Amino acid sequence: MKVGMKVGIVGLGLIGGSMALDMKASGQYQLYGVSRRPETCRQAVEWGVVQEASTNFALLADMQMVILCTPLGVMEETVQRLLPHLNPDTVLTDVGSVKRAVVDALAPLWPNFVGGHPMAGTADSGLAAAQRHLFVDCAYVLTPVPSTPALAVERVTHLAQVLGSRVYHCTPDEHDRAVAWISHLPVMVSASLIAACLHEADVGVVKLAKTLASSGFRDTSRVGGGNPELGRMMATYNREALLRSLYGYRHQLDQVIDLIERSQWEELEQRLGQTQASRPEFT
Amino acid sequence: MKVGMKVGIVGLGLIGGSMALDMKASGQYQLYGVSRRPETCRQAVEWGVVQEASTNFALLADMQMVILCTPLGVMEETVQRLLPHLNPDTVLTDVGSVKRAVVDALAPLWPNFVGGHPMAGTADSGLAAAQRHLFVDCAYVLTPVPSTPALAVERVTHLAQVLGSRVYHCTPDEHDRAVAWISHLPVMVSASLIAACLHEADVGVVKLAKTLASSGFRDTSRVGGGNPELGRMMATYNREALLRSLYGYRHQLDQVIDLIERSQWEELEQRLGQTQASRPEFT
Repeated sequence: MKVGMKVGIVGLGLIGGSMALDMKASGQYQLYGVSRRPETCRQAVEWGVVQEASTNFALLADMQMVILCTPLGVMEETVQRLLPHLNPDTVLTDVGSVKRAVVDALAPLWPNFVGGHPMAGTADSGLAAAQRHLFVDCAYVLTPVPSTPALAVERVTHLAQVLGSRVYHCTPDEHDRAVAWISHLPVMVSASLIAACLHEADVGVVKLAKTLASSGFRDTSRVGGGNPELGRMMATYNREALLRSLYGYRHQLDQVIDLIERSQWEELEQRLGQTQASRPEFT
Repeated sequence: MKVGMKVGIVGLGLIGGSMALDMKASGQYQLYGVSRRPETCRQAVEWGVVQEASTNFALLADMQMVILCTPLGVMEETVQRLLPHLNPDTVLTDVGSVKRAVVDALAPLWPNFVGGHPMAGTADSGLAAAQRHLFVDCAYVLTPVPSTPALAVERVTHLAQVLGSRVYHCTPDEHDRAVAWISHLPVMVSASLIAACLHEADVGVVKLAKTLASSGFRDTSRVGGGNPELGRMMATYNREALLRSLYGYRHQLDQVIDLIERSQWEELEQRLGQTQASRPEFT
Protein backbone atom coordinates (compact mmCIF):
# COMPACT_ATOMS: atom_id res chain seq x y z
CA MET A 1 0.00 0.00 0.00
CA LYS A 2 1.23 3.42 -1.03
CA VAL A 3 1.72 5.72 1.92
CA GLY A 4 1.49 9.48 1.46
CA MET A 5 1.50 12.47 3.74
CA LYS A 6 -1.44 12.41 6.14
CA VAL A 7 -3.57 15.51 5.58
CA GLY A 8 -6.75 16.55 7.34
CA ILE A 9 -9.36 18.69 5.65
CA VAL A 10 -11.73 20.57 7.93
CA GLY A 11 -14.85 21.63 6.05
CA LEU A 12 -15.84 19.38 3.16
CA GLY A 13 -17.48 21.90 0.83
CA LEU A 14 -16.64 23.13 -2.66
CA ILE A 15 -13.08 24.18 -1.80
CA GLY A 16 -12.16 21.41 0.66
CA GLY A 17 -13.76 18.75 -1.54
CA SER A 18 -12.11 19.99 -4.74
CA MET A 19 -8.70 20.16 -3.05
CA ALA A 20 -9.13 16.61 -1.77
CA LEU A 21 -10.01 15.27 -5.23
CA ASP A 22 -6.81 16.65 -6.81
CA MET A 23 -4.63 15.74 -3.81
CA LYS A 24 -5.92 12.18 -3.89
CA ALA A 25 -5.33 11.94 -7.64
CA SER A 26 -1.70 13.03 -7.13
CA GLY A 27 -1.06 9.88 -5.09
CA GLN A 28 0.98 11.92 -2.61
CA TYR A 29 -1.54 12.25 0.19
CA GLN A 30 -3.71 10.22 2.55
CA LEU A 31 -6.79 12.30 3.22
CA TYR A 32 -8.96 12.58 6.33
CA GLY A 33 -12.00 14.82 6.54
CA VAL A 34 -13.91 16.55 9.32
CA SER A 35 -17.33 18.04 8.81
CA ARG A 36 -20.02 19.22 11.21
CA ARG A 37 -22.60 17.16 9.33
CA PRO A 38 -22.51 13.32 9.63
CA GLU A 39 -24.22 13.08 6.22
CA THR A 40 -21.35 15.02 4.59
CA CYS A 41 -18.82 12.72 6.30
CA ARG A 42 -20.65 9.69 4.97
CA GLN A 43 -20.80 11.08 1.42
CA ALA A 44 -17.14 12.15 1.43
CA VAL A 45 -16.06 8.58 2.20
CA GLU A 46 -18.63 6.99 -0.10
CA TRP A 47 -17.57 9.20 -3.01
CA GLY A 48 -13.91 8.50 -2.29
CA VAL A 49 -13.08 12.14 -1.58
CA VAL A 50 -11.29 11.19 1.67
CA GLN A 51 -10.40 7.79 3.08
CA GLU A 52 -11.94 8.49 6.47
CA ALA A 53 -14.22 11.23 7.81
CA SER A 54 -15.67 12.19 11.15
CA THR A 55 -17.49 14.94 13.00
CA ASN A 56 -14.82 14.55 15.69
CA PHE A 57 -11.52 16.43 15.52
CA ALA A 58 -9.77 13.51 17.29
CA LEU A 59 -9.51 11.97 13.81
CA LEU A 60 -6.79 14.52 13.03
CA ALA A 61 -4.44 13.68 15.93
CA ASP A 62 -1.51 12.51 13.82
CA MET A 63 -1.81 14.61 10.66
CA GLN A 64 1.24 16.21 9.04
CA MET A 65 -0.94 19.00 7.64
CA VAL A 66 -4.46 20.27 8.31
CA ILE A 67 -6.27 22.54 5.87
CA LEU A 68 -9.05 24.75 7.25
CA CYS A 69 -11.74 25.03 4.59
CA THR A 70 -14.59 26.43 6.67
CA PRO A 71 -16.27 29.79 5.97
CA LEU A 72 -14.47 32.76 7.58
CA GLY A 73 -17.39 33.29 9.97
CA VAL A 74 -16.90 29.97 11.77
CA MET A 75 -13.13 29.64 11.42
CA GLU A 76 -12.18 30.91 14.86
CA GLU A 77 -14.60 28.67 16.79
CA THR A 78 -13.55 25.73 14.62
CA VAL A 79 -9.88 26.33 15.40
CA GLN A 80 -10.56 26.60 19.13
CA ARG A 81 -12.03 23.11 19.04
CA LEU A 82 -9.42 21.71 16.65
CA LEU A 83 -6.14 22.80 18.22
CA PRO A 84 -6.26 20.63 21.37
CA HIS A 85 -6.28 17.57 19.11
CA LEU A 86 -3.28 18.45 16.93
CA ASN A 87 0.29 17.40 17.54
CA PRO A 88 2.71 20.36 17.56
CA ASP A 89 4.42 19.34 14.30
CA THR A 90 1.20 19.58 12.31
CA VAL A 91 1.30 22.33 9.71
CA LEU A 92 -1.94 24.27 9.77
CA THR A 93 -3.16 26.34 6.84
CA ASP A 94 -6.45 27.92 5.77
CA VAL A 95 -8.16 28.93 2.53
CA GLY A 96 -9.87 32.14 3.73
CA SER A 97 -10.29 35.04 1.30
CA VAL A 98 -9.04 37.53 3.89
CA LYS A 99 -5.68 37.08 5.56
CA ARG A 100 -4.79 39.64 8.23
CA ALA A 101 -7.72 38.81 10.53
CA VAL A 102 -7.03 35.08 10.14
CA VAL A 103 -3.24 35.32 10.56
CA ASP A 104 -3.57 37.70 13.53
CA ALA A 105 -5.89 35.21 15.22
CA LEU A 106 -4.11 31.95 14.40
CA ALA A 107 -0.35 32.62 14.13
CA PRO A 108 -0.05 33.34 17.89
CA LEU A 109 -2.00 30.16 18.71
CA TRP A 110 -0.15 27.86 16.33
CA PRO A 111 3.45 28.60 15.27
CA ASN A 112 3.17 26.12 12.40
CA PHE A 113 0.33 28.10 10.81
CA VAL A 114 0.62 29.46 7.25
CA GLY A 115 -2.17 31.67 5.90
CA GLY A 116 -3.27 30.73 2.40
CA HIS A 117 -5.78 31.83 -0.20
CA PRO A 118 -6.41 29.69 -3.27
CA MET A 119 -8.22 32.14 -5.57
CA ALA A 120 -10.71 29.86 -7.25
CA GLY A 121 -14.37 29.01 -6.88
CA THR A 122 -17.64 28.59 -8.67
CA ALA A 123 -21.14 29.95 -8.07
CA ASP A 124 -21.98 26.66 -6.35
CA SER A 125 -21.14 25.39 -2.89
CA GLY A 126 -21.15 22.14 -0.96
CA LEU A 127 -19.37 18.82 -1.41
CA ALA A 128 -21.56 17.86 -4.40
CA ALA A 129 -20.13 20.87 -6.26
CA ALA A 130 -16.51 19.77 -5.74
CA GLN A 131 -14.59 19.25 -8.96
CA ARG A 132 -11.16 18.22 -10.28
CA HIS A 133 -8.72 20.86 -11.51
CA LEU A 134 -10.56 23.78 -9.85
CA PHE A 135 -7.26 25.46 -8.89
CA VAL A 136 -5.27 24.91 -12.07
CA ASP A 137 -3.63 28.16 -13.23
CA CYS A 138 -5.31 30.09 -10.42
CA ALA A 139 -3.33 32.23 -8.00
CA TYR A 140 -2.63 30.62 -4.60
CA VAL A 141 -1.39 33.29 -2.20
CA LEU A 142 0.59 32.38 0.94
CA THR A 143 1.08 34.94 3.69
CA PRO A 144 3.76 33.65 6.06
CA VAL A 145 4.94 35.97 8.84
CA PRO A 146 8.62 36.32 9.90
CA SER A 147 8.19 33.66 12.60
CA THR A 148 6.62 31.05 10.28
CA PRO A 149 8.93 27.99 9.99
CA ALA A 150 10.34 27.45 6.49
CA LEU A 151 9.23 23.80 6.51
CA ALA A 152 5.61 24.82 7.02
CA VAL A 153 5.74 27.27 4.11
CA GLU A 154 7.37 24.62 1.95
CA ARG A 155 4.69 22.06 2.70
CA VAL A 156 1.83 24.39 1.74
CA THR A 157 3.75 25.65 -1.31
CA HIS A 158 4.09 22.07 -2.48
CA LEU A 159 0.35 21.54 -2.00
CA ALA A 160 -0.41 24.58 -4.16
CA GLN A 161 1.91 23.26 -6.84
CA VAL A 162 0.23 19.84 -6.75
CA LEU A 163 -3.06 21.65 -7.38
CA GLY A 164 -1.52 23.32 -10.45
CA SER A 165 -1.78 26.83 -9.01
CA ARG A 166 0.54 29.82 -9.45
CA VAL A 167 2.03 30.44 -5.98
CA TYR A 168 2.60 33.97 -4.62
CA HIS A 169 4.02 35.01 -1.25
CA CYS A 170 3.20 38.36 0.35
CA THR A 171 2.29 39.84 3.73
CA PRO A 172 -1.28 39.48 5.03
CA ASP A 173 -1.75 43.24 4.61
CA GLU A 174 -0.56 43.27 1.02
CA HIS A 175 -2.92 40.41 0.25
CA ASP A 176 -5.89 42.10 1.86
CA ARG A 177 -5.28 45.42 0.12
CA ALA A 178 -4.82 43.76 -3.27
CA VAL A 179 -7.98 41.64 -2.98
CA ALA A 180 -9.90 44.66 -1.70
CA TRP A 181 -9.20 46.27 -5.09
CA ILE A 182 -9.76 43.36 -7.41
CA SER A 183 -12.27 41.23 -5.55
CA HIS A 184 -14.09 42.98 -2.69
CA LEU A 185 -14.48 46.49 -4.18
CA PRO A 186 -15.94 45.07 -7.44
CA VAL A 187 -18.69 43.34 -5.43
CA MET A 188 -19.78 46.63 -3.82
CA VAL A 189 -19.42 48.59 -7.10
CA SER A 190 -21.42 45.99 -8.97
CA ALA A 191 -24.13 45.58 -6.32
CA SER A 192 -24.58 49.37 -6.21
CA LEU A 193 -25.16 49.36 -9.97
CA ILE A 194 -28.05 46.91 -9.60
CA ALA A 195 -29.45 48.81 -6.61
CA ALA A 196 -29.26 52.14 -8.46
CA CYS A 197 -31.20 50.81 -11.47
CA LEU A 198 -33.90 49.44 -9.19
CA HIS A 199 -34.29 52.84 -7.51
CA GLU A 200 -35.12 54.72 -10.73
CA ALA A 201 -38.44 56.40 -9.89
CA ASP A 202 -40.11 55.82 -13.29
CA VAL A 203 -41.26 52.19 -13.24
CA GLY A 204 -41.71 52.21 -17.03
CA VAL A 205 -38.04 53.08 -17.45
CA VAL A 206 -37.00 50.37 -14.96
CA LYS A 207 -39.07 47.83 -16.90
CA LEU A 208 -37.54 48.94 -20.21
CA ALA A 209 -34.03 48.87 -18.71
CA LYS A 210 -34.56 45.28 -17.53
CA THR A 211 -35.74 44.32 -21.00
CA LEU A 212 -32.87 46.03 -22.83
CA ALA A 213 -30.05 44.93 -20.51
CA SER A 214 -27.52 42.83 -22.38
CA SER A 215 -23.94 41.61 -22.05
CA GLY A 216 -22.48 44.93 -20.86
CA PHE A 217 -24.87 45.17 -17.93
CA ARG A 218 -24.69 41.44 -17.25
CA ASP A 219 -20.90 41.48 -16.94
CA THR A 220 -20.74 44.65 -14.85
CA SER A 221 -23.46 43.41 -12.48
CA ARG A 222 -22.35 39.78 -12.18
CA VAL A 223 -20.34 39.87 -8.95
CA GLY A 224 -22.94 42.22 -7.41
CA GLY A 225 -25.48 39.42 -7.83
CA GLY A 226 -23.34 36.92 -5.93
CA ASN A 227 -23.66 35.27 -2.52
CA PRO A 228 -24.69 37.97 0.04
CA GLU A 229 -23.12 36.07 2.94
CA LEU A 230 -19.77 36.06 1.14
CA GLY A 231 -20.08 39.81 0.50
CA ARG A 232 -20.79 40.36 4.17
CA MET A 233 -17.74 38.30 5.16
CA MET A 234 -15.47 40.29 2.82
CA ALA A 235 -16.67 43.53 4.37
CA THR A 236 -16.53 42.27 7.94
CA TYR A 237 -13.06 40.77 7.79
CA ASN A 238 -11.48 43.21 5.35
CA ARG A 239 -13.30 46.35 6.50
CA GLU A 240 -10.34 48.69 6.63
CA ALA A 241 -8.84 47.85 3.23
CA LEU A 242 -12.27 47.74 1.59
CA LEU A 243 -13.14 51.19 2.97
CA ARG A 244 -9.85 52.58 1.63
CA SER A 245 -10.69 51.14 -1.79
CA LEU A 246 -14.25 52.46 -1.64
CA TYR A 247 -12.99 55.98 -0.81
CA GLY A 248 -10.53 55.82 -3.70
CA TYR A 249 -13.26 54.58 -6.00
CA ARG A 250 -15.71 57.28 -4.94
CA HIS A 251 -13.06 59.89 -5.65
CA GLN A 252 -12.59 58.58 -9.21
CA LEU A 253 -16.35 58.43 -9.74
CA ASP A 254 -16.70 62.03 -8.52
CA GLN A 255 -14.07 63.11 -11.05
CA VAL A 256 -16.03 61.45 -13.87
CA ILE A 257 -19.24 63.12 -12.68
CA ASP A 258 -17.45 66.47 -12.52
CA LEU A 259 -16.13 66.12 -16.08
CA ILE A 260 -19.61 65.29 -17.39
CA GLU A 261 -21.21 68.14 -15.40
CA ARG A 262 -18.69 70.56 -16.92
CA SER A 263 -18.99 68.93 -20.40
CA GLN A 264 -15.24 68.33 -20.51
CA TRP A 265 -15.46 65.76 -23.29
CA GLU A 266 -11.83 65.84 -24.36
CA GLU A 267 -10.68 65.13 -20.79
CA LEU A 268 -13.33 62.41 -20.37
CA GLU A 269 -12.15 60.68 -23.53
CA GLN A 270 -8.52 60.87 -22.34
CA ARG A 271 -9.54 59.30 -19.05
CA LEU A 272 -11.41 56.47 -20.77
CA GLY A 273 -8.39 56.05 -23.03
CA GLN A 274 -6.21 55.50 -19.95
CA THR A 275 -8.53 52.87 -18.50
CA GLN A 276 -8.76 51.15 -21.89
CA ALA A 277 -4.95 51.07 -22.13
CA SER A 278 -4.46 49.85 -18.53
CA ARG A 279 -7.10 47.14 -18.32
CA PRO A 280 -5.00 44.47 -20.09
CA GLU A 281 -2.40 44.82 -17.27
CA PHE A 282 -4.89 43.11 -14.96
CA THR A 283 -4.41 39.48 -15.91
CA MET B 1 -33.85 39.55 -62.02
CA LYS B 2 -35.27 39.68 -58.50
CA VAL B 3 -36.24 43.19 -57.46
CA GLY B 4 -36.30 44.17 -53.78
CA MET B 5 -36.75 47.38 -51.86
CA LYS B 6 -33.94 49.83 -52.65
CA VAL B 7 -32.10 50.66 -49.44
CA GLY B 8 -29.14 52.96 -48.94
CA ILE B 9 -26.66 52.44 -46.14
CA VAL B 10 -24.62 55.45 -45.09
CA GLY B 11 -21.53 54.38 -43.19
CA LEU B 12 -20.16 50.96 -44.09
CA GLY B 13 -18.65 49.88 -40.78
CA LEU B 14 -19.42 47.04 -38.37
CA ILE B 15 -23.11 47.93 -37.98
CA GLY B 16 -23.85 49.08 -41.53
CA GLY B 17 -21.90 46.19 -43.04
CA SER B 18 -23.49 43.57 -40.77
CA MET B 19 -26.98 44.88 -41.51
CA ALA B 20 -26.28 44.79 -45.24
CA LEU B 21 -25.10 41.17 -45.10
CA ASP B 22 -28.31 39.94 -43.45
CA MET B 23 -30.56 42.17 -45.57
CA LYS B 24 -28.94 40.88 -48.75
CA ALA B 25 -29.28 37.27 -47.59
CA SER B 26 -33.02 37.82 -47.00
CA GLY B 27 -33.47 38.48 -50.75
CA GLN B 28 -35.84 41.36 -49.93
CA TYR B 29 -33.51 44.29 -50.54
CA GLN B 30 -31.30 45.90 -53.16
CA LEU B 31 -28.48 47.57 -51.27
CA TYR B 32 -26.51 50.74 -52.05
CA GLY B 33 -23.71 52.04 -49.85
CA VAL B 34 -22.16 55.42 -49.18
CA SER B 35 -18.86 55.80 -47.36
CA ARG B 36 -16.45 58.71 -47.01
CA ARG B 37 -13.58 56.44 -48.03
CA PRO B 38 -13.30 55.25 -51.67
CA GLU B 39 -11.40 52.18 -50.47
CA THR B 40 -14.35 51.13 -48.27
CA CYS B 41 -16.73 51.63 -51.22
CA ARG B 42 -14.53 49.44 -53.40
CA GLN B 43 -14.33 46.68 -50.74
CA ALA B 44 -18.07 46.76 -50.01
CA VAL B 45 -18.83 46.06 -53.68
CA GLU B 46 -16.00 43.56 -54.10
CA TRP B 47 -17.10 41.60 -51.00
CA GLY B 48 -20.72 41.67 -52.21
CA VAL B 49 -21.95 43.62 -49.17
CA VAL B 50 -23.80 46.12 -51.41
CA GLN B 51 -24.43 46.09 -55.15
CA GLU B 52 -23.15 49.61 -55.68
CA ALA B 53 -21.24 52.07 -53.49
CA SER B 54 -20.06 55.63 -53.77
CA THR B 55 -18.65 58.54 -51.80
CA ASN B 56 -21.41 60.64 -53.38
CA PHE B 57 -24.88 60.88 -51.81
CA ALA B 58 -26.41 61.28 -55.31
CA LEU B 59 -26.33 57.45 -55.43
CA LEU B 60 -29.25 57.45 -52.96
CA ALA B 61 -31.66 59.62 -55.00
CA ASP B 62 -34.35 56.98 -55.47
CA MET B 63 -34.07 54.85 -52.33
CA GLN B 64 -37.17 53.70 -50.45
CA MET B 65 -35.19 53.64 -47.19
CA VAL B 66 -31.84 55.03 -46.02
CA ILE B 67 -30.13 53.79 -42.87
CA LEU B 68 -27.68 56.15 -41.17
CA CYS B 69 -24.87 54.03 -39.71
CA THR B 70 -22.29 56.73 -39.01
CA PRO B 71 -20.93 57.49 -35.53
CA LEU B 72 -23.10 59.93 -33.53
CA GLY B 73 -20.40 62.58 -33.76
CA VAL B 74 -20.66 62.98 -37.54
CA MET B 75 -24.35 62.18 -37.96
CA GLU B 76 -25.61 65.75 -38.16
CA GLU B 77 -23.10 66.90 -40.80
CA THR B 78 -23.74 63.70 -42.76
CA VAL B 79 -27.48 64.32 -42.74
CA GLN B 80 -27.04 67.93 -43.87
CA ARG B 81 -25.22 66.68 -46.95
CA LEU B 82 -27.54 63.70 -47.52
CA LEU B 83 -31.01 65.28 -47.34
CA PRO B 84 -30.84 67.40 -50.54
CA HIS B 85 -30.39 64.17 -52.51
CA LEU B 86 -33.34 62.19 -51.09
CA ASN B 87 -36.83 62.07 -52.52
CA PRO B 88 -39.51 62.97 -49.95
CA ASP B 89 -40.92 59.44 -49.76
CA THR B 90 -37.62 57.98 -48.58
CA VAL B 91 -37.86 56.57 -45.06
CA LEU B 92 -34.82 57.66 -43.06
CA THR B 93 -33.64 55.83 -39.95
CA ASP B 94 -30.48 55.75 -37.88
CA VAL B 95 -28.70 53.28 -35.58
CA GLY B 96 -27.39 55.73 -32.97
CA SER B 97 -27.11 54.60 -29.35
CA VAL B 98 -28.75 57.82 -28.12
CA LYS B 99 -32.14 58.88 -29.38
CA ARG B 100 -33.41 62.22 -28.09
CA ALA B 101 -30.57 64.29 -29.53
CA VAL B 102 -30.88 62.50 -32.88
CA VAL B 103 -34.69 62.64 -33.08
CA ASP B 104 -34.77 66.29 -31.98
CA ALA B 105 -32.29 67.14 -34.74
CA LEU B 106 -33.70 65.01 -37.58
CA ALA B 107 -37.48 64.67 -37.11
CA PRO B 108 -38.08 68.38 -37.91
CA LEU B 109 -35.87 68.13 -41.01
CA TRP B 110 -37.32 64.89 -42.37
CA PRO B 111 -40.92 63.87 -41.54
CA ASN B 112 -40.23 60.32 -42.71
CA PHE B 113 -37.51 59.85 -40.09
CA VAL B 114 -37.74 57.04 -37.49
CA GLY B 115 -35.12 56.88 -34.76
CA GLY B 116 -33.71 53.40 -34.23
CA HIS B 117 -31.17 51.61 -32.04
CA PRO B 118 -30.18 48.05 -32.82
CA MET B 119 -28.49 47.00 -29.56
CA ALA B 120 -25.70 44.81 -30.84
CA GLY B 121 -22.00 45.17 -31.47
CA THR B 122 -18.61 43.63 -30.98
CA ALA B 123 -15.32 45.01 -29.71
CA ASP B 124 -14.24 45.43 -33.35
CA SER B 125 -15.14 48.10 -35.86
CA GLY B 126 -14.92 48.67 -39.60
CA LEU B 127 -16.32 46.83 -42.62
CA ALA B 128 -13.91 43.92 -42.22
CA ALA B 129 -15.51 43.19 -38.82
CA ALA B 130 -19.03 42.94 -40.32
CA GLN B 131 -20.72 39.60 -39.71
CA ARG B 132 -23.94 37.72 -40.39
CA HIS B 133 -26.57 37.34 -37.66
CA LEU B 134 -25.11 40.14 -35.47
CA PHE B 135 -28.61 41.36 -34.52
CA VAL B 136 -30.33 38.02 -33.96
CA ASP B 137 -32.24 38.02 -30.63
CA CYS B 138 -30.90 41.49 -29.82
CA ALA B 139 -33.22 44.35 -28.87
CA TYR B 140 -33.94 46.84 -31.70
CA VAL B 141 -35.58 49.94 -30.25
CA LEU B 142 -37.64 52.31 -32.41
CA THR B 143 -38.53 55.77 -31.13
CA PRO B 144 -41.21 57.23 -33.40
CA VAL B 145 -42.76 60.57 -32.38
CA PRO B 146 -46.51 61.34 -32.74
CA SER B 147 -45.96 62.90 -36.18
CA THR B 148 -44.01 59.92 -37.60
CA PRO B 149 -46.00 58.29 -40.47
CA ALA B 150 -47.14 54.72 -39.72
CA LEU B 151 -45.69 53.49 -43.03
CA ALA B 152 -42.21 54.67 -42.03
CA VAL B 153 -42.43 52.88 -38.66
CA GLU B 154 -43.67 49.75 -40.41
CA ARG B 155 -40.80 49.71 -42.87
CA VAL B 156 -38.13 49.96 -40.16
CA THR B 157 -39.98 47.45 -37.96
CA HIS B 158 -39.90 44.98 -40.85
CA LEU B 159 -36.15 45.58 -41.27
CA ALA B 160 -35.58 44.78 -37.58
CA GLN B 161 -37.62 41.59 -37.94
CA VAL B 162 -35.62 40.56 -41.02
CA LEU B 163 -32.48 40.94 -38.88
CA GLY B 164 -34.02 38.59 -36.30
CA SER B 165 -34.18 41.25 -33.57
CA ARG B 166 -36.75 41.77 -30.82
CA VAL B 167 -38.49 45.07 -31.66
CA TYR B 168 -39.46 47.59 -28.97
CA HIS B 169 -41.17 50.97 -29.38
CA CYS B 170 -40.77 53.76 -26.85
CA THR B 171 -40.20 57.52 -26.68
CA PRO B 172 -36.71 58.91 -27.28
CA ASP B 173 -36.58 59.98 -23.61
CA GLU B 174 -37.56 56.56 -22.30
CA HIS B 175 -34.90 54.98 -24.49
CA ASP B 176 -32.20 57.36 -23.33
CA ARG B 177 -33.02 56.93 -19.65
CA ALA B 178 -33.12 53.14 -19.93
CA VAL B 179 -29.80 52.92 -21.80
CA ALA B 180 -28.26 55.38 -19.36
CA TRP B 181 -28.90 52.79 -16.64
CA ILE B 182 -27.95 49.61 -18.43
CA SER B 183 -25.36 50.75 -20.93
CA HIS B 184 -23.87 54.21 -20.27
CA LEU B 185 -23.70 54.16 -16.45
CA PRO B 186 -21.95 50.75 -16.45
CA VAL B 187 -19.18 52.22 -18.63
CA MET B 188 -18.48 55.02 -16.13
CA VAL B 189 -18.81 52.68 -13.11
CA SER B 190 -16.48 50.16 -14.68
CA ALA B 191 -13.91 52.71 -15.90
CA SER B 192 -13.81 54.26 -12.42
CA LEU B 193 -13.00 50.84 -10.98
CA ILE B 194 -9.94 50.51 -13.20
CA ALA B 195 -8.91 54.12 -12.50
CA ALA B 196 -9.27 53.63 -8.74
CA CYS B 197 -7.03 50.53 -8.72
CA LEU B 198 -4.38 52.39 -10.68
CA HIS B 199 -4.40 55.24 -8.15
CA GLU B 200 -3.55 53.03 -5.15
CA ALA B 201 -0.46 54.72 -3.72
CA ASP B 202 1.46 51.51 -2.88
CA VAL B 203 2.94 50.33 -6.19
CA GLY B 204 3.63 46.88 -4.72
CA VAL B 205 -0.07 46.46 -3.98
CA VAL B 206 -1.02 47.67 -7.49
CA LYS B 207 1.36 45.14 -8.99
CA LEU B 208 -0.04 42.34 -6.79
CA ALA B 209 -3.61 43.38 -7.62
CA LYS B 210 -2.84 43.20 -11.34
CA THR B 211 -1.37 39.72 -10.86
CA LEU B 212 -4.25 38.40 -8.75
CA ALA B 213 -7.10 39.89 -10.82
CA SER B 214 -9.31 37.15 -12.20
CA SER B 215 -12.80 36.68 -13.65
CA GLY B 216 -14.61 38.86 -11.12
CA PHE B 217 -12.43 41.87 -11.86
CA ARG B 218 -12.34 41.11 -15.57
CA ASP B 219 -16.12 41.07 -15.89
CA THR B 220 -16.69 44.16 -13.77
CA SER B 221 -14.01 46.15 -15.63
CA ARG B 222 -14.81 44.97 -19.17
CA VAL B 223 -17.00 47.81 -20.41
CA GLY B 224 -14.73 50.36 -18.70
CA GLY B 225 -11.92 49.13 -20.95
CA GLY B 226 -13.93 49.79 -24.11
CA ASN B 227 -13.67 52.36 -26.89
CA PRO B 228 -13.05 55.81 -25.28
CA GLU B 229 -14.59 57.65 -28.23
CA LEU B 230 -17.82 55.71 -27.77
CA GLY B 231 -17.82 56.54 -24.04
CA ARG B 232 -17.36 60.21 -24.87
CA MET B 233 -20.29 60.09 -27.33
CA MET B 234 -22.59 58.45 -24.76
CA ALA B 235 -21.78 61.17 -22.26
CA THR B 236 -22.02 64.00 -24.80
CA TYR B 237 -25.32 62.99 -26.36
CA ASN B 238 -26.97 61.51 -23.27
CA ARG B 239 -25.51 63.88 -20.70
CA GLU B 240 -28.69 64.61 -18.75
CA ALA B 241 -29.90 61.02 -18.35
CA LEU B 242 -26.38 59.79 -17.61
CA LEU B 243 -25.91 62.41 -14.89
CA ARG B 244 -29.23 61.41 -13.28
CA SER B 245 -28.06 57.78 -13.29
CA LEU B 246 -24.65 58.72 -11.90
CA TYR B 247 -26.26 60.68 -9.04
CA GLY B 248 -28.53 57.73 -8.25
CA TYR B 249 -25.56 55.39 -8.37
CA ARG B 250 -23.42 57.58 -6.10
CA HIS B 251 -26.25 57.65 -3.60
CA GLN B 252 -26.39 53.84 -3.50
CA LEU B 253 -22.60 53.64 -3.21
CA ASP B 254 -22.67 56.12 -0.31
CA GLN B 255 -25.20 53.94 1.47
CA VAL B 256 -22.93 50.90 1.11
CA ILE B 257 -19.96 52.90 2.41
CA ASP B 258 -22.05 54.13 5.33
CA LEU B 259 -23.11 50.57 6.27
CA ILE B 260 -19.50 49.37 6.22
CA GLU B 261 -18.27 52.40 8.19
CA ARG B 262 -20.89 51.66 10.86
CA SER B 263 -20.25 47.88 10.68
CA GLN B 264 -23.91 47.22 9.95
CA TRP B 265 -23.28 43.70 8.65
CA GLU B 266 -26.85 42.43 8.88
CA GLU B 267 -28.15 45.34 6.80
CA LEU B 268 -25.31 44.97 4.30
CA GLU B 269 -26.14 41.31 3.83
CA GLN B 270 -29.83 42.14 3.33
CA ARG B 271 -28.87 44.70 0.72
CA LEU B 272 -26.67 42.23 -1.15
CA GLY B 273 -29.50 39.71 -0.88
CA GLN B 274 -31.80 42.16 -2.66
CA THR B 275 -29.35 42.75 -5.50
CA GLN B 276 -28.77 39.01 -5.82
CA ALA B 277 -32.53 38.41 -6.03
CA SER B 278 -33.12 41.24 -8.53
CA ARG B 279 -30.29 40.67 -10.96
CA PRO B 280 -32.02 37.86 -12.90
CA GLU B 281 -34.80 40.37 -13.80
CA PHE B 282 -32.31 42.10 -16.09
CA THR B 283 -32.43 39.83 -19.13
